Amino acid sequence: MKKNVIDDCDLKYVLDIISDKWSVFVILTLSEKKVVRFNELQKLLKGISQKMLTASLRKLEGNKLVERRVFGEIPPKVEYTLSSIGLSLVPHIKNVVEWAVNNVDEIKSVDHNL
Amino acid sequence: MKKNVIDDCDLKYVLDIISDKWSVFVILTLSEKKVVRFNELQKLLKGISQKMLTASLRKLEGNKLVERRVFGEIPPKVEYTLSSIGLSLVPHIKNVVEWAVNNVDEIKSVDHNL
Repeated sequence: MKKNVIDDCDLKYVLDIISDKWSVFVILTLSEKKVVRFNELQKLLKGISQKMLTASLRKLEGNKLVERRVFGEIPPKVEYTLSSIGLSLVPHIKNVVEWAVNNVDEIKSVDHNL
Repeated sequence: MKKNVIDDCDLKYVLDIISDKWSVFVILTLSEKKVVRFNELQKLLKGISQKMLTASLRKLEGNKLVERRVFGEIPPKVEYTLSSIGLSLVPHIKNVVEWAVNNVDEIKSVDHNL
């Protein structure tokens, strides 16, 4: 994999989207639940603030990983789903999370010779 | 993939290590070159400062993804290689980078309806 396969800035751009914890959890939750409303998503993602969830969804939507559908009802109904690009990222994110689960204890174990 | 499979902080800890652009490029370069010295690595990673490369290597070494060998010669010779944990991460990083290569143009294309 040569470095010039992807431009530095492009890689940084993409890594910045997908590499924060809440984006990962939003993507994984949407991949499981398929269609989710805001309040339900906030319940599922214990500890996330409304502000953080709003920002995460807006970032993911703005970068075409998540789709937002507004239904013209009173009160308005809003649903979130993964886009096809978002869905295509899920297996890679699952692999990284699984790698993290398998290695985090060793990684975090303090090495006194360093 | 339930959220409770990995603790929030652990996932954040791991994501923080592997999700910055230079860590990704260092890991990919070491996976290709197997054994690399500092100056060679700095040449291969166009645009990285000595300070940034030192910090990236120290972070990756401190978290057991990279191993550093010092040879008792004059001047001292220092070589960097991926650890077994580092090597096990490579396929997942390559998949994410490949996904980024395939999707970054679409992701970055500005959507005027948002």
